[in-house]
Amino acid sequence: MTDRKEFRDLAPPEDARDAIASLDLAPDPEEVPLRDARGRILAERIDADLDVPGFDRASMDGYAVRARDTFGADEADPARLSLAGAVHAGEEPDVEVGEGEAVEISTGAVMPPGGDAVVMVERTEEDGDDVLVRTAVAPGDHVMLAGADVAAGERALGPGTRLTPREVGLLSALGVESVPVVGKPTVGIVSTGDELVRPGERLNSAAGQIYDVNSYTVATAVEEAGGDPRLYPHAGDDYDEMERVLREAADECDLVLSSGSTSASAVDVIYRVVEERGELLLHGVAVKPGKPMLVGRLDNSAYVGLPGYPVSALTIFRTFVAPAIRDAAGLPEPATATVEARMAAEERFDEGRMRLMPVGLVEDGEGDLLAYAVDKGSGATTSLVEADGVAEVAPDTAYVAEGEAVAVELFSPDVRPPSVLGVGEDDPVLARLLDELDRPRYLAVGSRQGLRRLRDGVADFAVTTADGGERPARGSLSAEELGSYEREWGLVVASGNPEEVEGLADLVDRDLRFVNRGTDSGLRTNLGNALADLADDRGVSRRDLVEAIDGFELSAKAHESPARKVAGGQADAGLGLRATAEKLGLGFVPVGVETVRVLANPDRTDKEGVRALESVLSDVGRFTSRPGFSP
Amino acid sequence: MTDRKEFRDLAPPEDARDAIASLDLAPDPEEVPLRDARGRILAERIDADLDVPGFDRASMDGYAVRARDTFGADEADPARLSLAGAVHAGEEPDVEVGEGEAVEISTGAVMPPGGDAVVMVERTEEDGDDVLVRTAVAPGDHVMLAGADVAAGERALGPGTRLTPREVGLLSALGVESVPVVGKPTVGIVSTGDELVRPGERLNSAAGQIYDVNSYTVATAVEEAGGDPRLYPHAGDDYDEMERVLREAADECDLVLSSGSTSASAVDVIYRVVEERGELLLHGVAVKPGKPMLVGRLDNSAYVGLPGYPVSALTIFRTFVAPAIRDAAGLPEPATATVEARMAAEERFDEGRMRLMPVGLVEDGEGDLLAYAVDKGSGATTSLVEADGVAEVAPDTAYVAEGEAVAVELFSPDVRPPSVLGVGEDDPVLARLLDELDRPRYLAVGSRQGLRRLRDGVADFAVTTADGGERPARGSLSAEELGSYEREWGLVVASGNPEEVEGLADLVDRDLRFVNRGTDSGLRTNLGNALADLADDRGVSRRDLVEAIDGFELSAKAHESPARKVAGGQADAGLGLRATAEKLGLGFVPVGVETVRVLANPDRTDKEGVRALESVLSDVGRFTSRPGFSP
Repeated sequence: MTDRKEFRDLAPPEDARDAIASLDLAPDPEEVPLRDARGRILAERIDADLDVPGFDRASMDGYAVRARDTFGADEADPARLSLAGAVHAGEEPDVEVGEGEAVEISTGAVMPPGGDAVVMVERTEEDGDDVLVRTAVAPGDHVMLAGADVAAGERALGPGTRLTPREVGLLSALGVESVPVVGKPTVGIVSTGDELVRPGERLNSAAGQIYDVNSYTVATAVEEAGGDPRLYPHAGDDYDEMERVLREAADECDLVLSSGSTSASAVDVIYRVVEERGELLLHGVAVKPGKPMLVGRLDNSAYVGLPGYPVSALTIFRTFVAPAIRDAAGLPEPATATVEARMAAEERFDEGRMRLMPVGLVEDGEGDLLAYAVDKGSGATTSLVEADGVAEVAPDTAYVAEGEAVAVELFSPDVRPPSVLGVGEDDPVLARLLDELDRPRYLAVGSRQGLRRLRDGVADFAVTTADGGERPARGSLSAEELGSYEREWGLVVASGNPEEVEGLADLVDRDLRFVNRGTDSGLRTNLGNALADLADDRGVSRRDLVEAIDGFELSAKAHESPARKVAGGQADAGLGLRATAEKLGLGFVPVGVETVRVLANPDRTDKEGVRALESVLSDVGRFTSRPGFSP
Repeated sequence: MTDRKEFRDLAPPEDARDAIASLDLAPDPEEVPLRDARGRILAERIDADLDVPGFDRASMDGYAVRARDTFGADEADPARLSLAGAVHAGEEPDVEVGEGEAVEISTGAVMPPGGDAVVMVERTEEDGDDVLVRTAVAPGDHVMLAGADVAAGERALGPGTRLTPREVGLLSALGVESVPVVGKPTVGIVSTGDELVRPGERLNSAAGQIYDVNSYTVATAVEEAGGDPRLYPHAGDDYDEMERVLREAADECDLVLSSGSTSASAVDVIYRVVEERGELLLHGVAVKPGKPMLVGRLDNSAYVGLPGYPVSALTIFRTFVAPAIRDAAGLPEPATATVEARMAAEERFDEGRMRLMPVGLVEDGEGDLLAYAVDKGSGATTSLVEADGVAEVAPDTAYVAEGEAVAVELFSPDVRPPSVLGVGEDDPVLARLLDELDRPRYLAVGSRQGLRRLRDGVADFAVTTADGGERPARGSLSAEELGSYEREWGLVVASGNPEEVEGLADLVDRDLRFVNRGTDSGLRTNLGNALADLADDRGVSRRDLVEAIDGFELSAKAHESPARKVAGGQADAGLGLRATAEKLGLGFVPVGVETVRVLANPDRTDKEGVRALESVLSDVGRFTSRPGFSP
């Protein structure tokens, strides 16, 4: 094996922040058209270069007059002025207001010379070539003087101003066509690892290829933080190629992030490139996750190496890198970037390092936020959508108590806690029910785990098959049933049932390759019970039957997994649902019907998301179309 | 005059909301590349189409083994296995793990056939062709089974999910290259009014032209609400051209907004086009501003007519149109879109209509938000940057009391209240001081108005010239001086002083065209005092001198305005500052030195923005470079 870098002298997290802050990410200001200026930050003060309005302007439809000609006029005794002409908006006046005269004028039109006030049309009446004015006006009435709104030379907007619609409005009024704004730092993203394939490309799983998760994730996060992400072709683990790509990125960007491979050897190669071609400020930070984090300079660019697991990469990015990008882009921390929550359960730590704990969020019955730890180092990409943000836990913290307040830095200012959090069985009807809800979160952990998590007080509801998994013992789990429906289960076989499977007995008696579901699945318990019945009929033990089934222990995670193995020719029969067989165009041998129950945490039944779920459940018939179903 | 539409039967605001809600703005879903998916809303559920990982995967660097070969191994008594080969990430294994064998394996690599567990490298030692394993492992240890993270067929993300970095991460893991998202409603913006000119184009003020403020403002607001704005060439007030442009926009967009001219005649033309070519649902709403608001259908598009004044247009857009665009785009109301505030002062209403009151926000000494009314129908574009949002006041409300709570719908979720609110004199040094602060708001209302607004308890600080305006009477205004600096004032004359102006006496005695500042300006009071001194010297009345000055009553708003009139040849001398003369390359005849004092509201001196101002003031010398200054 190659020598491996040991991270013995881990830098404190503050040093990592300081090191990143010391890197200069700030790009040059740029000039953008006003149309593209939304959300950008002014790089310089903008002073008004002209008067707004640029002329004395009528602010009402009516008549321009000399105010003194109207003195004393009222409803009973109007002043009679002779109509000398008209001025409309966008016209240069070709008439003056002489003594005893009035000029018709539109809102926004230039005051004709001689006029010093406007009489509203509502207070006048035309009478032949004359106008009767039924009110007295003072000089300046209904006239906006040139520069009264903005005067040339006035300070209009300061540097650092964020351009929202109203600022764009003021700049429009000043005739500004383009504005100097703080540049977006360009951030090069280099993914390493021979096994990575860009989404959309063909994957060779047999050769251990996986899709590159971090590149797009980090690119999206960079964009959100106000940077301009650039993806570089992925560098593999080859030293020369990696050096070439890293230097190309460093040449073109203000900051280079590498991310991807979790292998120590890839980190070693990057380490060497940065050390030889730049300056390594920091190697290894006393934070979990993120130990192997690198910070340095590469040629004239800043460089940060992110950990390989997606949630870890996003965590380190959120905590250390995003603030630096925002700073360089002149953007404030979004107001929605951090929320307060209470820990739903105690969480213990066995290491002294500062912990950046990914947490999921859920609202309790009172609408307060609860946080619970997710992705305890599993590296699972699914944790990405369960984790809402990160809670920082100080070094040498033994535990965070249940109910303790934590500040959660959200993974995105757009992240909102789910409206409802469910756990349990995966099911095609349930999937359609969830589609009807706004922002549900559902974790398909099986009936058994689902009931456990409902009891833990984290989930709002659990989905369980009543005849399988751990039955809710009335004493231990008080749960309210929100609704239920039935589903037909059995054996999924190849299309047309070429092996002529007729039931469970065939699995036992014939040489068929079978795929089961996992032990947390209610369906697997159903199967076990059905086999027990068969064993009773035959007067043998259940265990005898189980051992005779080729693949009983070959469990698959998701409810479609066994069926997909049948579809792929890897098995002759799989445990599954009729709905799945139909969806995948496979054959189906019914074995039984089970009830899917949706149980709510009794403290959460008034929660809006729970009530919405109850409502769609009350109309579950819409979603359970079961052609060919015969009970 | 043409017939004018009377808005006698104004619809209640709820009817306007209903009418807009009844219009179908929803565009077709579209497919976007994952790279461009940030912030978009999934149009459909995405199920996993493959297993993640797609193979049994080592989750540690180490050795793939048969777990049973390690049973009983520990530090003292390691198991000795023979090294059969190696598998790296991204490689297809070309070796099997036989009994008593180990295969070197990298994190992320495919488990070679025969192996069922991985031993961490840290617990091993190579010894020639053998590996010593110093720990026992169980089957499955450090192996992530195919599909363990995401299994093919699992529900991954539901319709309506907003795509933030983490969702992009999950989609990457699933190899998704592009996603079906809710389309952005296209919104055509037609500006009407002969007088409007696009920013960047040449303005003819003499012909009453002004820059088109609403088009870009509304376009920016449309974009912010999740729409795709399209600007149409401006239509003028010509019926045929307006019809052509409106129909073109209706043909190409989901929604057409017209905005621009405030003239009733332009509204009349649009009214006719919509009535003839579409359907008018609503004409006139009982809301202020917004009375002449139109809602209808134009060909197959929805149509809403916005009022002409910028703040009014943005107000109506924010209240009625933005929610409809967000709905169509599938976007939630941003969490930061509304804030709670207390009214800083009582506000009375003299009309029964619902009021959408534009308000500015300021934090009081305790960090609570105060709201104060701005833009009371003035139509000023400057109110755009003073108004932070809108407070809705129910019909037939006589007044909103000081201290009453109001919900303020911000003009943009990116709007934040200013860090500090100042009022008073405009000044070039002050402008530079303000540039040093983060999000200050400064209203150049002159010394007198500034002190008034400081006393009203709205502003955090006022800037006043001590020798001018209304002096802070110790009894009536308790204010703390944050700092002060001096500035030289006098007469700004043409470059090189061709008229050989030597002082104020020349204004009185010679035939010079003068431009004064407005009555709220401290400088004007200074001038008055200096003239009083001159009158004393001459034994005449101040009034005699004032009357002898051509242009004493010709006041200009901003501190640079008189100087700019000199620069433009419209005056021989203007009241102004040496700094202004130097900036504009003009001559300067000094008359006096005045002190600019920055006074704070005593309840706000601990406010962060006020302390920041105090800090830059303490170093004001950096900003007062006055070459040629001689006291």
